Amino acid sequence: MEAFAVPDVPEIEAGDDLADIVEERVDLRPDDVVVVASTVVSKAEGRTADLSEFPAGPRAREIASRLESATGDEKDPRFAQAVVEEGTELLMDAPFLLTETRFGHVTVNAGIDRSNVPGKELLLLPRRPGDSAERIHAGLAAAPPVVVADTCGRPFRHGQRGVAIGWAGMPASRDWRGETDREGHELEVTVQSVVDELAATANLIAGEGDGGTPIVVIRDWSFGDHEGSDELFREVEGDFVRQALREWHYDE
Amino acid sequence: MEAFAVPDVPEIEAGDDLADIVEERVDLRPDDVVVVASTVVSKAEGRTADLSEFPAGPRAREIASRLESATGDEKDPRFAQAVVEEGTELLMDAPFLLTETRFGHVTVNAGIDRSNVPGKELLLLPRRPGDSAERIHAGLAAAPPVVVADTCGRPFRHGQRGVAIGWAGMPASRDWRGETDREGHELEVTVQSVVDELAATANLIAGEGDGGTPIVVIRDWSFGDHEGSDELFREVEGDFVRQALREWHYDE
Ligand SMILES: Nc1nc2c(ncn2[C@@H]2O[C@H](COP(=O)(O)OP(=O)(O)O)[C@@H](O)[C@H]2O)c(=O)[nH]1
Ligand SMILES: Nc1nc2c(ncn2[C@@H]2O[C@H](COP(=O)(O)OP(=O)(O)O)[C@@H](O)[C@H]2O)c(=O)[nH]1
Ligand SMILES: [Mn+2]
Ligand SMILES: [Mn+2]
Ligand SMILES: [Mn+2]
Ligand SMILES: [Mn+2]
Repeated sequence: MEAFAVPDVPEIEAGDDLADIVEERVDLRPDDVVVVASTVVSKAEGRTADLSEFPAGPRAREIASRLESATGDEKDPRFAQAVVEEGTELLMDAPFLLTETRFGHVTVNAGIDRSNVPGKELLLLPRRPGDSAERIHAGLAAAPPVVVADTCGRPFRHGQRGVAIGWAGMPASRDWRGETDREGHELEVTVQSVVDELAATANLIAGEGDGGTPIVVIRDWSFGDHEGSDELFREVEGDFVRQALREWHYDE
Repeated sequence: MEAFAVPDVPEIEAGDDLADIVEERVDLRPDDVVVVASTVVSKAEGRTADLSEFPAGPRAREIASRLESATGDEKDPRFAQAVVEEGTELLMDAPFLLTETRFGHVTVNAGIDRSNVPGKELLLLPRRPGDSAERIHAGLAAAPPVVVADTCGRPFRHGQRGVAIGWAGMPASRDWRGETDREGHELEVTVQSVVDELAATANLIAGEGDGGTPIVVIRDWSFGDHEGSDELFREVEGDFVRQALREWHYDE
């Protein structure tokens, strides 16, 4: 397996066709996987904004003032307003805002970035990253699978890593259930979320700073002969951590 | 960046020297990263066991019967005993056992596997995967960084993915704080857990079944000129999810 950044990607602007931009720079094969950082998908889709577009309502002002007292840092109620508008559920309101997005992804601040945004204050996540992936996939002549990735944190472990927030042209996961181990025994529950692993691989190369390498091609990797599954985001019913967080309150 | 499985790894047995096994099969370079599935580290370290080695005490019997009533499946109290002995804290006792291991990793069943274990019923995680990584690292002439990986699940997202449980010869994370984005603005908190991303990359190739490819070499990837951090496992103080789980109880 090989992974390389698409060279010389320009600064992406609203309306840019990411499929064209990749196509002009790499001879893609049908069994490549193209991993695109959500940042450039958002830019191409015009998902930039200024704080002034989010006049804070009473709930956002309350959230911001609670955050201020929890963290000791000044918080802009307009940012809280943006997070509330982008998220469907606020799972934690202190000491940071943990949200579920419209498309089921759980992340801090509804995934709104303040870095790598030229001339604007905020970069919102793509509205439907699955559709974004589908569009890029459909726009590529070789029609390789496409993963839209973001960098985000997680419980239990420090730091952040790349995860998939949208995908097209392949299932999210390899379902190994029913297959056997080296002893011929059936495997226990084992659904391997390969789109997340592909996003993590790409992130090793894309980085977080000014590298300018938001699109990574993964070559000579194969999904293999496995059942596939497209369930990636847990529903709250089976997500005990989310249930626990709903009942929990931050104690200053 | 390139990733390939070490070819023809034999069935690993207690006492095997994994560094020798890799050395005999691959011409390693100092800037490679060697990712080793915890399964074979455990086998080499003799961390296999039978259920009969874990006679169930009263607490394990209580845990097993609670699990039985929560799931409707039969549960062996000796397995619960093994989980209790391997873990330092039981974060959830239903509908599955979520534990913290001795070395700070939060995972189901203290990471005890029942697959890919020849002749024995259980495979325990390495006792100190960081030390295991250090030993393999020290045993390799080119002294490349080594990551010990496991496959495990996570909150919010279905399925499992590779993560690092031990590492040596490199920091766990790239610390981007203080560096700038494309606009010249300082990045917000961004600690990229590259050992987890390397483990995820390796897992794409290693797989979960009878593939027989537990050791993966990552070549032509570079940590780069960044600050490093070795904090990977969150302390409970800063881990709000763990705090929430401590207070939460499963409602049948
Ligand atoms: N060429 C190019 N690179 C970009 C652009 N925007 C961001 N990047 C790069 O894309 C990579 C990922 O950026 P990041 O903000 O971490 O994206 P996220 O993980 O999707 O939030 C970094 O290497 C950035 O320098 C762009 O418009 N053009
Ligand atoms: N060659 C070889 N492969 C093994 C051995 N044990 C497990 N594997 C392979 O290692 C890979 C990972 O196994 P898995 O049980 O998922 O390891 P874990 O993720 O560390 O729990 C699979 O491809 C297995 O077939 C062994 O002793 N020898
Ligand atoms: Mn982002
Ligand atoms: Mn990023
Ligand atoms: Mn395992
Ligand atoms: Mn595995």
